[in-house]
Amino acid sequence: MTESVDETALATVQMHRPRWGDPDAGIEMPSAASQFVTEGASPRAAVLPAAALTEAARAALVAVVGPDGIDVEDDGRVDHTRGYSTPDLLRLLAGDASDAPDAVVYPADADAVVGVLRTCARHRLAVVPFTGGTSVVGGLTPDRAGFVGVVSVDLRRMDALVEIDEISRIATFQAGIRGTRAEELLRTAGYTLGHFPQSYAGAGLGGYAATRSAGQSSAGYGRFDDMVEGLTLATGDGLLTLGTAPKSAAGPDLRQVVLGSEGAFGIITEVRVRIHRQPQVRVFEGWRFPDFDAGADALRRLAQDGPMPTVLRLSDEVETALNLADPARLGADPGGCLVVAGFEGAAADVRWRQSAAATVFSDAGAQSLGAEPGEAWRTGRFRGPYLRDPMLASGVLVETLETACFWSRLHQVKQAVTAALTETLTAAGAPPAVLCHISHVYHSGASLYFTVVAPLGDDPLITWAQAKSAATDAIRATGATITHHHGVGRDHRTAFHGEIGPLGVEILTAIKTALDPDGICNPGILL
Amino acid sequence: MTESVDETALATVQMHRPRWGDPDAGIEMPSAASQFVTEGASPRAAVLPAAALTEAARAALVAVVGPDGIDVEDDGRVDHTRGYSTPDLLRLLAGDASDAPDAVVYPADADAVVGVLRTCARHRLAVVPFTGGTSVVGGLTPDRAGFVGVVSVDLRRMDALVEIDEISRIATFQAGIRGTRAEELLRTAGYTLGHFPQSYAGAGLGGYAATRSAGQSSAGYGRFDDMVEGLTLATGDGLLTLGTAPKSAAGPDLRQVVLGSEGAFGIITEVRVRIHRQPQVRVFEGWRFPDFDAGADALRRLAQDGPMPTVLRLSDEVETALNLADPARLGADPGGCLVVAGFEGAAADVRWRQSAAATVFSDAGAQSLGAEPGEAWRTGRFRGPYLRDPMLASGVLVETLETACFWSRLHQVKQAVTAALTETLTAAGAPPAVLCHISHVYHSGASLYFTVVAPLGDDPLITWAQAKSAATDAIRATGATITHHHGVGRDHRTAFHGEIGPLGVEILTAIKTALDPDGICNPGILL
Repeated sequence: MTESVDETALATVQMHRPRWGDPDAGIEMPSAASQFVTEGASPRAAVLPAAALTEAARAALVAVVGPDGIDVEDDGRVDHTRGYSTPDLLRLLAGDASDAPDAVVYPADADAVVGVLRTCARHRLAVVPFTGGTSVVGGLTPDRAGFVGVVSVDLRRMDALVEIDEISRIATFQAGIRGTRAEELLRTAGYTLGHFPQSYAGAGLGGYAATRSAGQSSAGYGRFDDMVEGLTLATGDGLLTLGTAPKSAAGPDLRQVVLGSEGAFGIITEVRVRIHRQPQVRVFEGWRFPDFDAGADALRRLAQDGPMPTVLRLSDEVETALNLADPARLGADPGGCLVVAGFEGAAADVRWRQSAAATVFSDAGAQSLGAEPGEAWRTGRFRGPYLRDPMLASGVLVETLETACFWSRLHQVKQAVTAALTETLTAAGAPPAVLCHISHVYHSGASLYFTVVAPLGDDPLITWAQAKSAATDAIRATGATITHHHGVGRDHRTAFHGEIGPLGVEILTAIKTALDPDGICNPGILL
Repeated sequence: MTESVDETALATVQMHRPRWGDPDAGIEMPSAASQFVTEGASPRAAVLPAAALTEAARAALVAVVGPDGIDVEDDGRVDHTRGYSTPDLLRLLAGDASDAPDAVVYPADADAVVGVLRTCARHRLAVVPFTGGTSVVGGLTPDRAGFVGVVSVDLRRMDALVEIDEISRIATFQAGIRGTRAEELLRTAGYTLGHFPQSYAGAGLGGYAATRSAGQSSAGYGRFDDMVEGLTLATGDGLLTLGTAPKSAAGPDLRQVVLGSEGAFGIITEVRVRIHRQPQVRVFEGWRFPDFDAGADALRRLAQDGPMPTVLRLSDEVETALNLADPARLGADPGGCLVVAGFEGAAADVRWRQSAAATVFSDAGAQSLGAEPGEAWRTGRFRGPYLRDPMLASGVLVETLETACFWSRLHQVKQAVTAALTETLTAAGAPPAVLCHISHVYHSGASLYFTVVAPLGDDPLITWAQAKSAATDAIRATGATITHHHGVGRDHRTAFHGEIGPLGVEILTAIKTALDPDGICNPGILL
């Protein structure tokens, strides 16, 4: 399939350093997806404004991060422009780099981050933390109004494994370390973090914490916000270090205030996270359910009564057919919905959980598909984003959105969001395929992850904005949360405020005013 | 043992309605404890100041809660005086009811709570929420400076089970319902909340939420802050309702800001909590470990690698000997440390967990004591507080304190706190027995719960304050949290501020100022 990609367009997208991390990741578009491929979008050279940094500000930042710790060249600025949503890439494809930061700084430690914040406050520069740039919700596109310029604070130099406490099974990392590198260092010591979001190769641990990331093994290892036992936030007023015990009754849990703060309160410089022994055994398998509701009921049953697999996902009929319509995987009888269940741990524990889950699946009318679909999912699980980029360059709009809700509302939320996306895009002349899966399950509810594939059309930014707006309304109207793991950024800001209400906004505004009195921290994000 | 209690003194203590809830709870003091019983304290009549409520304020409150919804009589005021710590009881034994609220109001719904808050702000009255009065950290003793008076807001009329969502396994309760009543209502429907703190019979769900309560089955069912899926906080500015999904990436988790807020931001009026099917099977058993460290290692092993029992506790040598020194329970060979492990759930699940845990215990050198010590603990588990009161009336100081820390610090924290208590009390002429147990275990750490039994002496308030202060210093010096589940109140305020640092205090102050601009909500508590 790669040969059908417009290589020039792809190169333009990749002017934006491929943030999913592994430029060599293999991409194979499933045959069912290729019907959406139309003519490639036309690439243009990226245009970005001249850097607005004053010489005084530049000198002050150099005093903090050193002459090698600052970059005001175009390449570096484009690399740090916006996030990695489809609209972000479409704008870049169209040559629009107008949101480029005026400088990128690379602080070497937490004190330097504090110094950068102070310097930026003095010189009226907005600050955007950057650990991978994989935001798909506009988390890297701050408001510029009222600021001289924007500084991207890239934490890549702060990528150390500071300490492993093997007794407490906690590892302390600097916030700029990538997920892949953290996992590699832990593996050497016999451990795993167990956090595998799709942005795994590109995103950093500080970003996971700031956005409440959830990985594909969340059923077994928890979400990133569950993993964080402690963290340090740099503010202009110094460092806030939290977490003296796994759990405490010492007032509100302030770790949970920093988690999800998306750079609006300061910059996370260090995280202390739960780690686990490398599993002895790893088993993945597939099950076919007659329909989505039957599959969702079985997932709910496991989440509420146990035992929990390590990975547990359910694709709806459309996603099952489009992504996995392979007779070898689904057996002779096509159709239905695929569940992937993965089990990791000690051998006896895996045996027990796998066998008890099999009973639940069988009792719910599912058919075992054996190991193949599970293993196929496992080996291909980080490919989605790599696939998105060339499809986009080839004239296919691929975008995702996600939510979570309580189980009793799940069916209604799925129907409402699917209908909103389908109707809006069809009316705009871009009839979509809407794929959906459950990828994270909890006692009281689950996530719903939607993938939209549609012709790019003439005005994809406007078309997608309409579809996204309709989906957002459907999410809000059915009482679900505006985001399960992508975060708020600027794209979800209004809906987020509706979700937490005016008193919720007041709380966050009060915290921001206390920690960021100059309002320089990622302005326009969250608040 | 009850016959040795000074009945007059006990009656005085019980002037303070027995807040543990069940006045008929049987009390049998273990023979090993009676060596501490000395002469009974001398009871005096309680003295309380005249109610400071102005007639205008009284009329305004009546307009909100109705004429039957307010109580300014001495009995009601004494019933709502302070919490239930040993110093609180000692003061009452000495006839000191000087902290009595000036009025008690009984709002019927959340809107009435908002009305009470607005009325109290207008009339410069401090407000103390009351759902059971079992605080042992001064959570019901607000600062009076700058206020005309203090109003206790007793939520007992708000005790409804609002809704059970059986699909999502969530129950919505008004915040004034007692733990026992909530459990009774759920049992009728086939469910359990699984929250069994020692204050279970007396405390209400709003209090559990406001103080981050942890129950004795936290290994299986989680802490109360884990159970809360949603809640409503009444403020003078209206109601803040949070929780649209089990988990979300929509900014900081504001539920975790309200949890642990101890009435300082407003009054919790409703909680939505996870529920579970009534377990099919319930098995409790005892194991004897050669020493505390070996037992702690085995608990850690289970918490980190699984499987988790529903209840998991380890008593140290002193607690094992004093509380459970019964040859029938510990077998012919005395000594060592008792582990109680309880397993609840479906039969096959319990069999698997019990058998896997038994392997871990045996491998760690423990000796099985069979079901008897486990069942004895289970049936007697709510008796501790009932025992405390008559012992106090009989001249024995009994008080508890608790903390939590990461596993790697556990031994050091236990040693340091035990030494601090022992040295301080011995120097004050009140040589104590210091008992300790682990009652809550997590992946990365555990709680430590200390019980101190000492002669009451001449000046128990001062003596205990010295001991508590030394223990607090030891907790802070060893990097543990000042409280695992008792809360901050006013007793832990200074240490709490040390724990979260000046920036943490700034965050909480900013939230308080936003939600409680008049500063009437439990002033002096937390902040």
